[in-house]
Amino acid sequence: MDSKKRIIVVGGSAAGPKAAARARRLDENAEITIIQKSPDLSMASCGYPYYVGGFFDDRNMLLCTPAGIVRDPKYFQNAKKINALTGTEVTGINRKEKTVSMVNMSSDKEEKLNYDKLIIATGAVPKMPPIPGSDLKGISTLQSMEDADFLKKIGKEKNITKAVIIGGGLIGIETCEALELAGIEITVIELLPQLLTFLDWELAKLVENHVKTKNANVITENGIAEFLGSSGQLTGVKLKNGIELPCELAVVAIGVSPNVKLAKEAGLEIGTTGGIVVSEYMQTSDPDIYAAGDCVESYGIITGKKVHAPYGDLANLQGRVAGENAALGINKAASPGTIQTGICKVFDYKAGSTGLSEKAARAAGLSDIETVINASTDKPGFMNGFLLVTKLVVERKTGKILGAQCVGPGDVSKQIAIWAMAIKGKLTVEDMVSADLPYAPPFSLAIDHSIAAAHIMQNKLSGLMTGISCKELKDKLDSGEKPFVLDVRGPDEFEQTRLGIGEHLIPLGALRSRFRELPADKSAEIICYCKISLRGYEAARVLNGHGWKNVKVMEGGIMAWPYPKEK
Amino acid sequence: MDSKKRIIVVGGSAAGPKAAARARRLDENAEITIIQKSPDLSMASCGYPYYVGGFFDDRNMLLCTPAGIVRDPKYFQNAKKINALTGTEVTGINRKEKTVSMVNMSSDKEEKLNYDKLIIATGAVPKMPPIPGSDLKGISTLQSMEDADFLKKIGKEKNITKAVIIGGGLIGIETCEALELAGIEITVIELLPQLLTFLDWELAKLVENHVKTKNANVITENGIAEFLGSSGQLTGVKLKNGIELPCELAVVAIGVSPNVKLAKEAGLEIGTTGGIVVSEYMQTSDPDIYAAGDCVESYGIITGKKVHAPYGDLANLQGRVAGENAALGINKAASPGTIQTGICKVFDYKAGSTGLSEKAARAAGLSDIETVINASTDKPGFMNGFLLVTKLVVERKTGKILGAQCVGPGDVSKQIAIWAMAIKGKLTVEDMVSADLPYAPPFSLAIDHSIAAAHIMQNKLSGLMTGISCKELKDKLDSGEKPFVLDVRGPDEFEQTRLGIGEHLIPLGALRSRFRELPADKSAEIICYCKISLRGYEAARVLNGHGWKNVKVMEGGIMAWPYPKEK
Repeated sequence: MDSKKRIIVVGGSAAGPKAAARARRLDENAEITIIQKSPDLSMASCGYPYYVGGFFDDRNMLLCTPAGIVRDPKYFQNAKKINALTGTEVTGINRKEKTVSMVNMSSDKEEKLNYDKLIIATGAVPKMPPIPGSDLKGISTLQSMEDADFLKKIGKEKNITKAVIIGGGLIGIETCEALELAGIEITVIELLPQLLTFLDWELAKLVENHVKTKNANVITENGIAEFLGSSGQLTGVKLKNGIELPCELAVVAIGVSPNVKLAKEAGLEIGTTGGIVVSEYMQTSDPDIYAAGDCVESYGIITGKKVHAPYGDLANLQGRVAGENAALGINKAASPGTIQTGICKVFDYKAGSTGLSEKAARAAGLSDIETVINASTDKPGFMNGFLLVTKLVVERKTGKILGAQCVGPGDVSKQIAIWAMAIKGKLTVEDMVSADLPYAPPFSLAIDHSIAAAHIMQNKLSGLMTGISCKELKDKLDSGEKPFVLDVRGPDEFEQTRLGIGEHLIPLGALRSRFRELPADKSAEIICYCKISLRGYEAARVLNGHGWKNVKVMEGGIMAWPYPKEK
Repeated sequence: MDSKKRIIVVGGSAAGPKAAARARRLDENAEITIIQKSPDLSMASCGYPYYVGGFFDDRNMLLCTPAGIVRDPKYFQNAKKINALTGTEVTGINRKEKTVSMVNMSSDKEEKLNYDKLIIATGAVPKMPPIPGSDLKGISTLQSMEDADFLKKIGKEKNITKAVIIGGGLIGIETCEALELAGIEITVIELLPQLLTFLDWELAKLVENHVKTKNANVITENGIAEFLGSSGQLTGVKLKNGIELPCELAVVAIGVSPNVKLAKEAGLEIGTTGGIVVSEYMQTSDPDIYAAGDCVESYGIITGKKVHAPYGDLANLQGRVAGENAALGINKAASPGTIQTGICKVFDYKAGSTGLSEKAARAAGLSDIETVINASTDKPGFMNGFLLVTKLVVERKTGKILGAQCVGPGDVSKQIAIWAMAIKGKLTVEDMVSADLPYAPPFSLAIDHSIAAAHIMQNKLSGLMTGISCKELKDKLDSGEKPFVLDVRGPDEFEQTRLGIGEHLIPLGALRSRFRELPADKSAEIICYCKISLRGYEAARVLNGHGWKNVKVMEGGIMAWPYPKEK
């Protein structure tokens, strides 16, 4: 017990410090060193957009403990007896010698340190489009504390009026909100047909509609061809379709790549996703080297496939595992992988997802799936409930929950947590139908939104209801089909808002006395809906009960309709 | 298929209308009748306290659909083809004839109706203390729409200055908030040593402390002996210890009993909890009679014991099952029972629970259990996080989650939903340690509060940490023991607030250089804490690492300390 174990951690953002702290708690005597290239440590990097957006202005809040102490090298030394070398770049790993070479970036001093166990937590680097003009001033990412400082300064100075965000993913959308709140006119440019690709199109479209109500412009299915500049300064961007957008700032947010330069040079195995290959114990192909966080590839629990999953929470949990195993010298702690649960705030909306979207399920080769969309408020109307729209994806044969997405101004976070736990527990629709969740009017409906989604899915799986998504109906109408479209809301509601797609209005309460207005042909396709399609479902049951055989419910009703409405 | 099935539902609050609606959706041709004693139908009874408290003033909001239509007999007839007889009391069930006898309460007209399937959803009745003065004016419950109307009127008229709530359970506390918000001075009287008995004492005490900051008085371990009056009007209450409290209003909320009069008279089996015995299919001892909601006894999933579980959500889910099975004439839909998940709003706090408290677990004969208390904010400080205090109860041998309670101003609802789902999925601490929950700073910490609780529990179960609850420490000190109590916060924090229990202040960052201030005897009992006891845990690891063998962490730290503090 006399020789102290030497643990070196490369990287000081999320996974690295967590690994080091866990290692310390398990071995008070180990010599633990964190080597960090940037000047800061333990940055709450997921908080950058909120710092830029002015949710708070004290930069130290991104760096401090819950008790308000900045996590600088002195803190690490005093509180954790961890030697944190900031502004220091690791230049190489010698696995044979078991050393890392590093250089102090201000003094240029080079040094070698011996390790018994090494933990690589080098994170990810933002992707940059390989297009002309990338070196112009005014182009940034939002990946580092330096980026956050830069954008915060811009937001404060109010010298910039127009900015372009390249990429409509999670970081892009968060940055959009941040800069919009700083008073800058934003255009988000996304190559794909939708924002937030963890969502299926129809939910992403609802989010896009909301973003647009906040005066942000969104351009989809278009990429950037060139950064335009004058005297070295960005003046605009040129899109692939030739359009030029003037702007003084461009934030690139087209994703990140695992930062594996060191690992690759050291000969560690790199996976097909580009991340460092690790076992469930976060051990690399070298038994003395562990890796965790955005630089590794993770196991996708549902598909069994490897994924690059750069999530802040996963990085922390993986760091904890790596730190424990490195400290104890045995592989006991394990990370089961990820179901890629994520969430983001989008102005007054939230958008979250766990498990597989329909798109992801199909891409993974799963075809025996069923989906349903449920729209309702999160709480009763009398408690000022807000809308939630959920899309649930299950395996048809078994009813096993594969994934859920939820968007809206309501309590999305709880919904996604519920479904994430359902997936963790390998639950089925039948399990969820009777979930026992905390109910009181300030918090949920008597039948929680998630349980109602399970009820609708149960109805679909048992043949009680045939659903059709808004998109399927729109595509059908656009292709010239003429189903009988039936809005079963009240006349007042119809006057306030309506789709205007040739629908017929027969309020549910009058339906049984107005069958003569429906197609006489009992095999005619009838599509029912209301505001959220609960009455739409009841109407479909009535029609089924009276012999109509091809009745569908437009899932989620008007609240899930992502297209323009007549009024 | 010519003869229409006759389904009669007795009771029109929650389970009854749900059963009737589900039956209709499954059988468009059945003759469905709801018989309801009170004048209203489908009342959102869990919303009464918020109506009384002025969260909203339109009484119809308690009675209407999400689309704003009041669920009156006309609505039931038109939208659901259900015959709803309000103001009609069922006086008897003749199981041989398969009839119910009923009387219209305004016309006194008696009638008999035949049923093929009967669904009993007669709810529960509030318990009343068998003491003198119970017939005085000014004594109410908050169980019916009439009660809500009465208390709403009182709140509006502002003629009453003092009220007493008898019973500190969920309804009592919700009523306390409602009347306090209406400007009435409240005293809550509870026979037991704590409010909200679904919580363990130490969490209930935190809620009680919060209630007291809202100018409500709380008297525990004291019951009511007599209602005092003058000219038939309540003037005060006399407590068991002789104290008299003047008041113009008393609200009795000492619990409810299943309303089983009809079922009992009809010879249906009644369980030991006082509720109607039903199978998982919600079928009573008569195959043609189903029952659901507050009148039945439910299966306690964790303990395997029967419980009376009067929850609004459970009533709805049971009603759905009863309605389906009654309509289809086969028992397919099933209710698995309850884990008694519940939540209530308590001014700025929320208090929730799922599964077993420590108390409930021990009462159920489970002894191999471990508990842990975790205190943290729900979100990062820079996103204005609010406190959560969770107590987790697990089976020691297997790590199986048995229950969780959570209180505080933070997002309790999500925490309880997470744990409820963990129990549903039969998950263990090891599962929860790596839960994949939705993380972004507006919604949670990078390591969610629930996952952190699992981490601490894992540390306890693996022997890495020995915990002691605030209560255990207080009892220890009160009994004259002298452990070395170590506060490891910073001097500034110590100046702001401190326990004043003879603790020594050595900030964590200085601990390794100040061992000489600690007991030289390495077997001396040392109890560490900080604000939330994260640093307290780190300090304990340091001391363990340097040979101290009897080091404990006061779980939850100062944030979980329910006793008066020095400052």
